[in-house]
Amino acid sequence: MSRFDPIESLTDDESLAHYGRDWTRFWPARPEAVVFPRSTEEVVDLVRLARRDGLKLVPSGGRTGLSGGAVASSGEVVVSLEKMRELVELDTTEPGLRAQAGLPVGELQRRATEAGLYYPVDWAAAASSQLGGSIATNAGGIRVLRYGMTRDWVQGLTVVTGTGEVLELNRGLVKNNTGLDLRHLMIGSEGVLGIITEATMALTRPPPEQSVLLIGFAGLSSIMPVFTELRAGLTLSAFEFFDRRSIEYVAGATGEDFPLDGECPYYAVVEFDDPGQASQERALELFERLAEAGHLADGTISQSLTQAKELWRWREAISESISPMTPYKNDLSVRVSRVPEFLDALDRLVSEHYPEFEVVWFGHIGDGNLHMNVLRPEDWSIGNFHAAGRELSPRVFELVRQFEGSVSAEHGVGLLKREDLHYTRSKAEIELMRQIKAAFDPEGIFNPGKVF
Amino acid sequence: MSRFDPIESLTDDESLAHYGRDWTRFWPARPEAVVFPRSTEEVVDLVRLARRDGLKLVPSGGRTGLSGGAVASSGEVVVSLEKMRELVELDTTEPGLRAQAGLPVGELQRRATEAGLYYPVDWAAAASSQLGGSIATNAGGIRVLRYGMTRDWVQGLTVVTGTGEVLELNRGLVKNNTGLDLRHLMIGSEGVLGIITEATMALTRPPPEQSVLLIGFAGLSSIMPVFTELRAGLTLSAFEFFDRRSIEYVAGATGEDFPLDGECPYYAVVEFDDPGQASQERALELFERLAEAGHLADGTISQSLTQAKELWRWREAISESISPMTPYKNDLSVRVSRVPEFLDALDRLVSEHYPEFEVVWFGHIGDGNLHMNVLRPEDWSIGNFHAAGRELSPRVFELVRQFEGSVSAEHGVGLLKREDLHYTRSKAEIELMRQIKAAFDPEGIFNPGKVF
Ligand SMILES: Cc1cc2nc3c(=O)[nH]c(=O)nc-3n(C[C@H](O)[C@H](O)[C@H](O)COP(=O)(O)OP(=O)(O)OC[C@H]3O[C@@H](n4cnc5c(N)ncnc54)[C@H](O)[C@@H]3O)c2cc1C
Ligand SMILES: Cc1cc2nc3c(=O)[nH]c(=O)nc-3n(C[C@H](O)[C@H](O)[C@H](O)COP(=O)(O)OP(=O)(O)OC[C@H]3O[C@@H](n4cnc5c(N)ncnc54)[C@H](O)[C@@H]3O)c2cc1C
Repeated sequence: MSRFDPIESLTDDESLAHYGRDWTRFWPARPEAVVFPRSTEEVVDLVRLARRDGLKLVPSGGRTGLSGGAVASSGEVVVSLEKMRELVELDTTEPGLRAQAGLPVGELQRRATEAGLYYPVDWAAAASSQLGGSIATNAGGIRVLRYGMTRDWVQGLTVVTGTGEVLELNRGLVKNNTGLDLRHLMIGSEGVLGIITEATMALTRPPPEQSVLLIGFAGLSSIMPVFTELRAGLTLSAFEFFDRRSIEYVAGATGEDFPLDGECPYYAVVEFDDPGQASQERALELFERLAEAGHLADGTISQSLTQAKELWRWREAISESISPMTPYKNDLSVRVSRVPEFLDALDRLVSEHYPEFEVVWFGHIGDGNLHMNVLRPEDWSIGNFHAAGRELSPRVFELVRQFEGSVSAEHGVGLLKREDLHYTRSKAEIELMRQIKAAFDPEGIFNPGKVF
Repeated sequence: MSRFDPIESLTDDESLAHYGRDWTRFWPARPEAVVFPRSTEEVVDLVRLARRDGLKLVPSGGRTGLSGGAVASSGEVVVSLEKMRELVELDTTEPGLRAQAGLPVGELQRRATEAGLYYPVDWAAAASSQLGGSIATNAGGIRVLRYGMTRDWVQGLTVVTGTGEVLELNRGLVKNNTGLDLRHLMIGSEGVLGIITEATMALTRPPPEQSVLLIGFAGLSSIMPVFTELRAGLTLSAFEFFDRRSIEYVAGATGEDFPLDGECPYYAVVEFDDPGQASQERALELFERLAEAGHLADGTISQSLTQAKELWRWREAISESISPMTPYKNDLSVRVSRVPEFLDALDRLVSEHYPEFEVVWFGHIGDGNLHMNVLRPEDWSIGNFHAAGRELSPRVFELVRQFEGSVSAEHGVGLLKREDLHYTRSKAEIELMRQIKAAFDPEGIFNPGKVF
């Protein structure tokens, strides 16, 4: 019946619309078909078929991506890893696991926790994003400060290249200095080099109990000193900041009351190791000292796990609560020490050029990572708004270039930032990337038009 | 006078012999010249000159490499980074530093410590190896268990490619998902892709005071259970094992008395966080429990920093004390859980085929990394011995392949393991490496004949 038999496939309109797009809504979903391989071998078969029939393949995970990396708008075949979600092996002595690439990250976290272990990479969309997708985008999230990005947990990858070769990269070894590390090349490659079909991930022991401080800053210039003091005095897992507007949207979406007075320009959720009474006391001491110094205007500390979760909600719910305004997201980073200066410059730039736009800020101060979300005014169409966003971007990115930062800290390049890559990567680098792509995928089968 | 003017150069025999080789002694040193650039720009000039005049360049660091990566035996020009040793910037708020690639790692460690910070990657040759060389070989060493390899500390690299392009890779950012991560491709690339001229490295806060346990295992099968128990109960920085023969050589070379009875087949130096009385007590408790279970036969714990250093000497001095026997080194790794089984199989293999050879074992159990040192009998010439080593290797490597391990855990491939790369990396991978090399260095200027 289908050219993909015996590999499962769908071609009905609803499925094409569903699987043809990711979290972005800027591009139409127009794949030719969606296929659901169940093994590395079936992925190899798909690549062979693609070569024979001149098909283009879009590797597709949980489609929570924010840069259009998994979007199929030109008749490509979407290769969904959704049916490859087996946990192959879980090792508790030498903490780690091997799984198929379609395993949802939330499921991976749960399985690790059940075994008394911990997979620490976490972000608001982790539950529905997939292991393979998280590796292909090198997902970061809320605990990078303590645990690094997805990159830091990848010990081995099985990859199918554009010539249908199966690569076993690094095989779960801690140490392996045998030439160029192709594993790291795959991490963050956004589906342009090959399809990740399996991965071996390190796990760790769970941290001690965590407590959460919710604090309100007196002003922009207080953020770095507070971060530095708290990091020196406590063992931090997260230091997530957001602006006053964020809490308004979260309150609107969730109906909850913000536990502080809500008059500060910036807030942060600070998570830290709290194995006993001493750490709470320490945290309060530090808080008081920083309040006396005029840096902190308000704050509260969690007294239970439930309360900690409630405080976290104010940070975690931001993305979802602004999503009805189809925000024009920018996910920027600079060196940590330059964050306040950069934030200030950016804020001025946006309000100068687009006084009619609301901007919601949040980010991971400890990683130098700022999420700038320009909200679509209700009376603007998505198309017009997207166009305005694209107009604003060069100004923003020029500033990023001046600050030697990144135009995509976490979310990747995909379709959204393809034309902006040059702000962070030089011509020579982009040319090298192209040549590497040509080595892995000489016929350009994977994700055409993405990244570069 | 010299074609390299104004870049400093040497061509006298002594210098050529000195700079033409690394820690290995298997290949003759026959460079055409040694040059000493002082800046990235001078390195660019050298690449231009090489292209014009058809010269080959050997990037050269502290020449402590163990695989011949920095050896120049065919009329190449050695590019020594020795004169590029400036510390460009040291940031104490956001702990990190930027330095020229020729800065010795020992110096880097010292400068970090002086600033109240800590660079944790450490190994016996760190004092004379260079930052650039350590990155080009992704050096590991004795604290990988806790702190990872050099790779994990590299935040940015300045690289000169074979076309004379200067790449600024990652610019010290924590988060930067903008396409393929070329920085990670450079790490461990052993000078075949380009010359690293500067690097930005993360630093950390110093750990609390460390104590050291020296323990003697009852037998091979006790190593993993002891490791697992101690790692669960203490915060380990290192778990370094070695065999009885190692201590005999160290005792011979240093004239020291081994503090334990010396009758165990294997020993380990275990370093752990010891911020107060509690940890020592904990360590002793664990020790007693493991001794009662029959796993540990003997042990001692450091009571002072001086004693800790003395205990460490038994591990650290091994390499040097066996170096007069010009050992045939194999630096192997397997997945951690497979170490004892692998060690056993290897030991049997060597004693079966080369009963006349002494083997000294040491390694980093927590990383799955075993250093197998076959010693040259006094009456064998280096040449014959090297030939015998090369004969033994295929058998060893075949075993490594069966165990899905690495034929070079730490030391790289260089000249020594070029022909053995295929035991760990597939044909398809090696072909991809070649193509990546061709993209970075189309004329094959850098380190010809190395790695692949
Ligand atoms: C509410 C929300 C919050 C978010 N917060 C964060 C955050 O804090 N930090 C962060 O880093 N990201 C964040 N993201 C972005 C996103 O969740 C991550 O990038 C995630 O890792 C994408 O995984 P996925 O499986 O959904 O990938 P997809 O969106 O399906 O695909 C992403 C890219 O990877 C490729 N790909 C997918 N699977 C494979 C495979 N098996 N082999 C090869 N290529 C593949 C695709 O082609 C595409 O280019 C957020 C997203 C949302 C919606
Ligand atoms: C006693 C002893 C113990 C050791 N223990 C360990 C250990 O525990 N763990 C471990 O990992 N290693 C160990 N080593 C190996 C060695 O010290 C490391 O590999 C070290 O990182 C090499 O650094 P180097 O500056 O001496 O490099 P070199 O030997 O000078 O060069 C090594 C390779 O890097 C290339 N290179 C050097 N500088 C640059 C540059 N600036 N740009 C591009 N390429 C460059 C060279 O071409 C060569 O291929 C040990 C060595 C000795 C002698």
